[in-house]
Amino acid sequence: MDKLQRYLPILAWGREYNRTLLASDLLAAVIVTIMLIPQSLAYALLAGLPVEMGLYASILPLVAYGIFGSSRSLSVGPVAVVSLMTATAAGQVAEAGSVGYIEAALLMALMSGAFLLLMGVLRMGFLANFLSHPVIAGFITASGLIIAVSQLKHLFGVHAHGDNLLELLLSLAGQVGAMNPITFVLGVTVLVFLFWVRTGLQPLLVRLGLKEYPATLLAKTGPVIGVVITSVIAWAFGLGERGVALVGDVPSGLPELALPALSHSDWKELAISAVFISIIGFVESVSVGHTLAAKKRQKISPDQELIGLGAANIAASVSGGYPVTGGFARSVVNFDAGAETPAAGMFTAVGIAVTALLFTPYLAFLPQATLAATIIVAVLSLIDLSILKRTWQYGKSEFVAVATTMVATLTLGVETGVACGVLASLALHLYKTSRPHMAVVGEVPGTEHFRNIDRHQVQTHDTILSLRVDESLYFANASYIEDRLYELLAQRPAVRDVILMCTAVNEIDLSALETLESINQRLESSDMRFHLSEVKGPVMDTLKRTHFLDHLSGEVWLTQHQAVASILGAGENTPAAAGNGAASN
Amino acid sequence: MDKLQRYLPILAWGREYNRTLLASDLLAAVIVTIMLIPQSLAYALLAGLPVEMGLYASILPLVAYGIFGSSRSLSVGPVAVVSLMTATAAGQVAEAGSVGYIEAALLMALMSGAFLLLMGVLRMGFLANFLSHPVIAGFITASGLIIAVSQLKHLFGVHAHGDNLLELLLSLAGQVGAMNPITFVLGVTVLVFLFWVRTGLQPLLVRLGLKEYPATLLAKTGPVIGVVITSVIAWAFGLGERGVALVGDVPSGLPELALPALSHSDWKELAISAVFISIIGFVESVSVGHTLAAKKRQKISPDQELIGLGAANIAASVSGGYPVTGGFARSVVNFDAGAETPAAGMFTAVGIAVTALLFTPYLAFLPQATLAATIIVAVLSLIDLSILKRTWQYGKSEFVAVATTMVATLTLGVETGVACGVLASLALHLYKTSRPHMAVVGEVPGTEHFRNIDRHQVQTHDTILSLRVDESLYFANASYIEDRLYELLAQRPAVRDVILMCTAVNEIDLSALETLESINQRLESSDMRFHLSEVKGPVMDTLKRTHFLDHLSGEVWLTQHQAVASILGAGENTPAAAGNGAASN
Repeated sequence: MDKLQRYLPILAWGREYNRTLLASDLLAAVIVTIMLIPQSLAYALLAGLPVEMGLYASILPLVAYGIFGSSRSLSVGPVAVVSLMTATAAGQVAEAGSVGYIEAALLMALMSGAFLLLMGVLRMGFLANFLSHPVIAGFITASGLIIAVSQLKHLFGVHAHGDNLLELLLSLAGQVGAMNPITFVLGVTVLVFLFWVRTGLQPLLVRLGLKEYPATLLAKTGPVIGVVITSVIAWAFGLGERGVALVGDVPSGLPELALPALSHSDWKELAISAVFISIIGFVESVSVGHTLAAKKRQKISPDQELIGLGAANIAASVSGGYPVTGGFARSVVNFDAGAETPAAGMFTAVGIAVTALLFTPYLAFLPQATLAATIIVAVLSLIDLSILKRTWQYGKSEFVAVATTMVATLTLGVETGVACGVLASLALHLYKTSRPHMAVVGEVPGTEHFRNIDRHQVQTHDTILSLRVDESLYFANASYIEDRLYELLAQRPAVRDVILMCTAVNEIDLSALETLESINQRLESSDMRFHLSEVKGPVMDTLKRTHFLDHLSGEVWLTQHQAVASILGAGENTPAAAGNGAASN
Repeated sequence: MDKLQRYLPILAWGREYNRTLLASDLLAAVIVTIMLIPQSLAYALLAGLPVEMGLYASILPLVAYGIFGSSRSLSVGPVAVVSLMTATAAGQVAEAGSVGYIEAALLMALMSGAFLLLMGVLRMGFLANFLSHPVIAGFITASGLIIAVSQLKHLFGVHAHGDNLLELLLSLAGQVGAMNPITFVLGVTVLVFLFWVRTGLQPLLVRLGLKEYPATLLAKTGPVIGVVITSVIAWAFGLGERGVALVGDVPSGLPELALPALSHSDWKELAISAVFISIIGFVESVSVGHTLAAKKRQKISPDQELIGLGAANIAASVSGGYPVTGGFARSVVNFDAGAETPAAGMFTAVGIAVTALLFTPYLAFLPQATLAATIIVAVLSLIDLSILKRTWQYGKSEFVAVATTMVATLTLGVETGVACGVLASLALHLYKTSRPHMAVVGEVPGTEHFRNIDRHQVQTHDTILSLRVDESLYFANASYIEDRLYELLAQRPAVRDVILMCTAVNEIDLSALETLESINQRLESSDMRFHLSEVKGPVMDTLKRTHFLDHLSGEVWLTQHQAVASILGAGENTPAAAGNGAASN
């Protein structure tokens, strides 16, 4: 039963469900539904798909996530970055809007769902940890820029294409002459209105007498006002005949349930894209989920999230949707509106279903420019260029990882961008560990502590070299450490005992062990002894399984203090020069 | 001048050259030349190239390496693994023995040389460190197995093909019926003879009155006896007409100097292979060079080795050779024979040049089975299956890396094999650092030292959780550490102060810093304080550049002892429960 509950979180929260929770969830569902309608339509437009697919992707996937997901506040559905990635991938195998394009989107949802489920069953959620926060921030920012620029064509009422920022801008520049003035005025007006809604509507509602909290919530539904007003204007003034692109006929009713066409000729390419979409979607969703769960002292399980999102994507694929994930903005609204359980998401699904059943005829007059403005306003909140400054200040290698991610995303596309980011951050991490920080240490007078001679006033001895390596010893840094040790010894001809202080050595691998053996031999043949100190338990266990300790010319000491004291005590004929290491080195 | 000497090591040793050195180098050159003749021919056969290319690859490249190389004992030329890799790569773009195949080999030598030179100029020699010793050992062993099996067809006198072990064995099994009995008897006899030469010839020579040292050296030239005797037999009994494959006409004279055809249609594929060949050749060469240099307290410079090997490969490409590198067996013979400077290699080049000028007509009757036997005996010394046992005993993750390398090399080919090995070892390293060892620590009574409560008898306090993380904090392990900390806290409801002991923390990246901030907030909201202790200088410098320390609810302590003592001292109303941590946890 416990095991079943782990895989079906609904069994846990469902049993405690009561009227109070229902009331909270219902209110949240109403707010989120009104907010989701324009967003779902807009993201479908961004994905190059018929707008109704955005609605369909906001029905069944929410129910599926409600059953399997582990977050109580996450709101699943179409999101900006995943929509962009879907468009990029489908656009490589078919013309936007064609049957093949739609089939590609459905198939990617299915493959993405299957991949996420598989990862969940294999408990591979930890893999998401290999995407560093700065890389994610850089990727999201760059994607946001691409998305915003990609929507400008709808504001201008022109056609423009391009997979990266430069192509998009060039294409736009070439088309600016063909701009439709009515579309432009309408679009810019909506844009300005939506920006005002974000900051100005809530204070206005408060002045009109609403309490702060309901005013904040109601302000989130503001974008729907833009949708209604511009639709009415387009209908009243016949803007469709004046060259303003409208959404046009949207089929009424609920989506039919059907498996997507599995025999797409480019399924291999699509599968790779589905993997990228899954990973990005998962990472975005889990970070939102973590943040919201932490606020209520709840927990989410990354492995169960994989299963929840996998189920949501499979649900999307069989009900005419496209790849979905947990969105940041909508989840925050859902949380703020008081959603207590995933039932809120299920009620939202009902709301969207009702919309699809009853309100689609009215969408025919909705200008595409309105949706484009909705997208632009939504994604501008994703753009956070300060990550460049923060990483620059914090550490150059993180800055390099972020800059690589952003430049690659902007110039080579989203999939290459995120791949470059992950590889760059891992490569930089490995590079750093391959040239570890090493410190010659001496004893802080009057204590048993050893510190870097360059940073502290410490006591050293000419015949002893105490060296601390601030890294595990492994194949990538073994020869670097060996070379550095010999350099240090060349500067210190009086040294008879070398002590490697292993406080920071968490592992010694076989390559490094061979290097230590060769250091030991070389020191021994020069009449020097090689000691280790402060070796950690697990490392010592490994060393004991080898012959290394039998051949070691020196000893393994529990503490650095014991090592130095014993060596000095044993060799009393050796003149022990005590001095200020920081000054003499 | 110093700078020039760094790039042209010949300027350094050339100035000190004298008669004694000349005598040593000449003797070594004679021995190595006699040893190299059959090997060069054999490796060319292994590479699927005309045998004279093996000789050509042993002339000019040795001179080029002599000028630019930094090792005094390394002997450069065709080697087994690189010959196999050349055959695999060239075989994918052309039929073995065809003009296109030969052009591919020449072009790969050129591209490999250019790549090595570039790496040398960019001082990228450190990249070789990312190949771990066990992975190299596994790769060489698997390659040795493939090479040995690939030569069986020459022993049986049949045709067999295959890029991996299974294909080769199946192809051989299908051909065994078509075996040529004379070839087989001849080949097996040579094989047995060569095995005997390795162990039996030297004692025999000693019994015949030679001193031990010259006997050892002379025994190394034993294989040439096999070449002479079987050639005479093949000529005397007309074995060529009886179906025994002979080497056949070998052009006489020195190679013509010419740039290889640059416009190979498959140059992109070949370029990738050339990179693999370069890396493997470089790693093999540098490890031999290091070993030999260490014996004489000399040093080699990996970056200069890149330049030396690059020059050697370019020399090979313009003089009808194929990719070369520093060979293990020949370098050891060169070293043991007393080579003092790279001039020994240059004299060897003269020896091989004389062979190419005068002795090639006699090679026509040399049976291919003799060369195959030479190869088999040579590569069996590369095969070291004990690496599997050693890594299994040392650490399972290293075993996995070696096994992956070997299985991939045997089944998917040499390039995929080495790529899998590198990726597997890096991935396993990253995986380990993503789930670091963490220890709750307590004070060893009567000292200021803190040790793992599970391994030592230490003193702990119910209100303080002292946690040591044995790894740098970075994006891949930040959330793992966070989760483990909360688990530990859940088991310890009395804890009011959490101290993170940072002795083994060599870096805190931005992702990890965000995690620490979130831990700090969460602990603060539960009325717990979060402290750090024993933070290293470089880490502290980074933290000081952020606002983290301003928001930290606890303090940063120089030592763990100070932290615990001060916290206990400040909160004297808190009952400090002292006990045996090892027993109570």
